[in-house]
Amino acid sequence: MRVKHKKWADPLMAEHPELLVDDATQFKGKWQSRFSKKQPLHLEVGMGKGQFIIGMAKAHPEINFIGLEIQRTVAAIALKKALPEKLPNLQLICGEGEELTEYFEPGEVEKLYLNFSDPWPKKRHAKRRLTYHTFLSEYQLILQPQGQVELKTDNMGFFEFSVVSMNNFGMKFAGLWLDLHNSDENEHNVETEYEHKFASKGQPIYKLTAAMPKKDSL
Amino acid sequence: MRVKHKKWADPLMAEHPELLVDDATQFKGKWQSRFSKKQPLHLEVGMGKGQFIIGMAKAHPEINFIGLEIQRTVAAIALKKALPEKLPNLQLICGEGEELTEYFEPGEVEKLYLNFSDPWPKKRHAKRRLTYHTFLSEYQLILQPQGQVELKTDNMGFFEFSVVSMNNFGMKFAGLWLDLHNSDENEHNVETEYEHKFASKGQPIYKLTAAMPKKDSL
Repeated sequence: MRVKHKKWADPLMAEHPELLVDDATQFKGKWQSRFSKKQPLHLEVGMGKGQFIIGMAKAHPEINFIGLEIQRTVAAIALKKALPEKLPNLQLICGEGEELTEYFEPGEVEKLYLNFSDPWPKKRHAKRRLTYHTFLSEYQLILQPQGQVELKTDNMGFFEFSVVSMNNFGMKFAGLWLDLHNSDENEHNVETEYEHKFASKGQPIYKLTAAMPKKDSL
Repeated sequence: MRVKHKKWADPLMAEHPELLVDDATQFKGKWQSRFSKKQPLHLEVGMGKGQFIIGMAKAHPEINFIGLEIQRTVAAIALKKALPEKLPNLQLICGEGEELTEYFEPGEVEKLYLNFSDPWPKKRHAKRRLTYHTFLSEYQLILQPQGQVELKTDNMGFFEFSVVSMNNFGMKFAGLWLDLHNSDENEHNVETEYEHKFASKGQPIYKLTAAMPKKDSL
């Protein structure tokens, strides 16, 4: 999603360092200090406008959530949405998915979410897909041993690619759904903005949850 | 698929021991002797009326094919269809999927096909699904090291289950398609009777190809 630059974005981000972190490297290994309670840390890579991560933080006060977004204006929109909620278990980062190991210590994250990531449909762009093996290696470095990745998408080609890629990486599947919104799994589902739009058109939503392999089995 | 018993079934099978084997245990380890050439052996478990395995045998003279079917009348229908084709690389078995290790020596089979298997949708019947781990263990015993399993189905629930089960078994995915008939993979696709019926109604056909894990990695 490309969003037009908004003038208010940078000033708003500068005003709220308590909620949005612009230089995430400074909190590497210290993220728990940014929350009111020390509890498991879940990270969404590519939070977009934040509906999912804010919804999750509301629904699960027993977990600390971080939403990461590369685009400054989009991160600012999420910030604007999160501010009135005053959630003690939510933090936002404006930063890059490629730099996760600069932002987090090994094992600092318990679970990682990928929601409606850019499918990069052209074969020559496969390396940019967030489930390409180089990204999975990054995730493994910051996740706890056998930490989970949870993926949702409406893009069939991206899902097909991701299932094969995550299998080939040695990840162990916990659950797979080819029509999430018409399954039992939907009961506790927290929607993203995209998901709401696509699902309301009747398009199926795909979901996969999978655990990282034990390091010694690689 | 349940088919009404046909009187001609047993006599026809008795007349054609050169094509249909009724007691498959007697050829354990000796299947190559039943074909005109010694070449890789592919097995379909649950061939139904035989359209797929006959089509494959025609399309791939460089491979020896065996179709296995548990129901006598259904196996006889496949036999009737196969007879006029006079294919030197096709053999049929009337027998049970549970008894594969009685029929084949370890490593005798290179590739195994599961097409539109009974989905057994009720949870309490999960053990009967042909991708339940006990069946996968059977397949592994008769397949060559890292031998392939190729699965097609129109049943979403069965496909979801199979992907998770085959992943958890340690199988390495080679390819996954969520709408086979609208993909590049369809070019060389040989249809089954069911597949033709379902696909012509516009229902998606799912496909997974995956290799057995190396034995030492289990």
